[in-house]
Order: sequence, then structure tokens, then C-alpha cells
Amino acid sequence: MAEKVIMTSTDHVTEVLDVLSSRGLLLATWKQPDKPNAMTIGWGMIGCVWGKPIWQVLVRPSRYTYELIEREGRFSVNVMPKSLAGAVELCGTVSGRDRDKLDEANLTVSSGEILGAPIIDQSVIYYECRVLHANDFVPEAMVPDVRKGNYPSGDYHRVYWGEIKQCRVDRDALDSL
Amino acid sequence: MAEKVIMTSTDHVTEVLDVLSSRGLLLATWKQPDKPNAMTIGWGMIGCVWGKPIWQVLVRPSRYTYELIEREGRFSVNVMPKSLAGAVELCGTVSGRDRDKLDEANLTVSSGEILGAPIIDQSVIYYECRVLHANDFVPEAMVPDVRKGNYPSGDYHRVYWGEIKQCRVDRDALDSL
Repeated sequence: MAEKVIMTSTDHVTEVLDVLSSRGLLLATWKQPDKPNAMTIGWGMIGCVWGKPIWQVLVRPSRYTYELIEREGRFSVNVMPKSLAGAVELCGTVSGRDRDKLDEANLTVSSGEILGAPIIDQSVIYYECRVLHANDFVPEAMVPDVRKGNYPSGDYHRVYWGEIKQCRVDRDALDSL
Repeated sequence: MAEKVIMTSTDHVTEVLDVLSSRGLLLATWKQPDKPNAMTIGWGMIGCVWGKPIWQVLVRPSRYTYELIEREGRFSVNVMPKSLAGAVELCGTVSGRDRDKLDEANLTVSSGEILGAPIIDQSVIYYECRVLHANDFVPEAMVPDVRKGNYPSGDYHRVYWGEIKQCRVDRDALDSL
């Protein structure tokens, strides 16, 4: 594993958002001590709120990650190299309730040094985040095409506002995104 | 005014977020036809939700912009050059209820070509946005230090999720950010 160096939360955001909306990123949480889980996310926001750098992730209550993030109050967002697109896809198609997705995808995890959130070793960039706030979507305050197109079963996302406590990049691997 | 060309919503995000959290950006709305208003924002998020590029802005109900954005359902986010830091500061210190801030700041406005939102001509980058959703912060779902540090009077922000319908940049002026 190449060394990852600390970066500013606004570094490389263009690349990160482009991967988010194309292959997706991995949102990692602990299911048990030493048992990590990850879900693939294609939606999310990055910015600054309350004077802090924030990663915002959206999780439907039906997802296994929902109960983990509610319990843990911490998560990581991992940007994976293009060569691991298959692993990212796997994490987006099966539930971690019954299977050890990360192990099946040959991904390994270490504890983040600030919060102890699970960090995927093979990431090129990662963000270690602490949940500062969670709020829900309000169906009646949503334009109809968004509501109908994304929530036919009423499974509205919860929005998690995660303070980025540390983010690191393997600069030599940026070409692999 | 130099020509601004259409850009991808993920272009130059690093620069935009750095200006957001240092000098601030201008969030512009119409107060009347041909009467624009702008408030300075230092917080906000950019990303992708519902498969759409999104700018997320936060407005307290006590702000004049709150009633304008509620009524209009559209806004622009404008990234101003460093030389106009004083104008951005002015827009963050007085209310547009009683004064024509943009005129006082010598800023002029044109109608955005997609939504007709007010666009500040002197911006280096701008985003024209349509509100898809609004939801509120939930005091009891906020960590105490964030709640106490930012909401002593209980004036919690409303979160506006704006689809970026178009964004443009004056590439020759990027050095002026």
C-alpha cells in the first residue's frame, strides 16, 4: 500500500465528484468490531457548513448501513481506483446483512486514526467523518418528478452531515481514478 | 464583460469551495421583477443527488432571502473575484429589505438563460439553480456543540437543494479568484 498523505478537504473534489456520479464511492461503517461493511453511493455532497468541512451522505432506512451509521455516528467515504470498479459494483448489489462484501471483493480495512472509522486500504482518497447531524427528506417539499422518480415505495433518504475529521490521498495513484 | 462559457458542474469545485469558506459567495434572488437581491454565504454544499448536479444553500427563516427563495423557487450562486471582496462583504452585512445592496456594491445583474434567475455580471463563475427540495434542520438530531455554537436563538436553517441547470465560467478570470 502506498503512503497516503493528509490533504485539504477541498483538494481533488472535481475528481471525487466525477467518480461519485460515474462508478460510485464506498461508504464504510462497522457492523461489528473488526467486521466492516460498505455500501456503494452515487449521490452525495461535499462542502462547508458550521465552519467545518462536511461530507453529506444519503441512506435509505431500508439499507443495512442505516442502522450501522445510526449506531456508530461515524463513517468513511472511499474513492477507489478504476481497476476496482468491480468491487465497487459488488458492494452496490448485495446486502452486508448476510454477506461479508468487503472480503468477497478482496478489500481490506484499517481503523482511521482520528475516529476509528473503517478505512478501505485500497482507496486512492478517503475521508473519515463524524456525524454532526441527520435530517430527513420531506415528501411534500419535493418537486413531483423527483419524488415520483426516486421514491415510488416511500423509502425516503435520511441525510447524514459528516464532519470530515481527516482526509488523505495517495497522490501517486490519482491517475488510477 | 468577458464571455463566460458553459462548464460542467464539477469543474473548478476546489476553487469555488475555497472561496466559499474564505470570502464567501453571493446567493442571488429576485425581490421584484428587475430588482435583484443577494446575500453572502460562507456555507454550502455541492454534489450529485437524484442523478442531478446540486448546489445546496442554507438560509435562516429570519433572512430576507428566505421569503424570496420560497416564492421564486430559483436562485443563483455567484463566485466573485477577489477584487470585489468589499462588495461581497457589503452584501453580508446589510439586509436587502430596505436597501438595494447590489446597486450600492456597483454590481449588475442579468437574467439567467435557463430559469431567468438573477446572475451577477461581475462573477467569474455562476450556477443557475432550481429548487427541487427544501428540508429543515432538526435541533434534537444535532450534536450539542454545533447546536449551541450556531443556534443560540433557535433560528435553524432551511436547506435548499437546487438543481444546477447551467453553470458558466470566465476562464480568463480564474486567476482573479
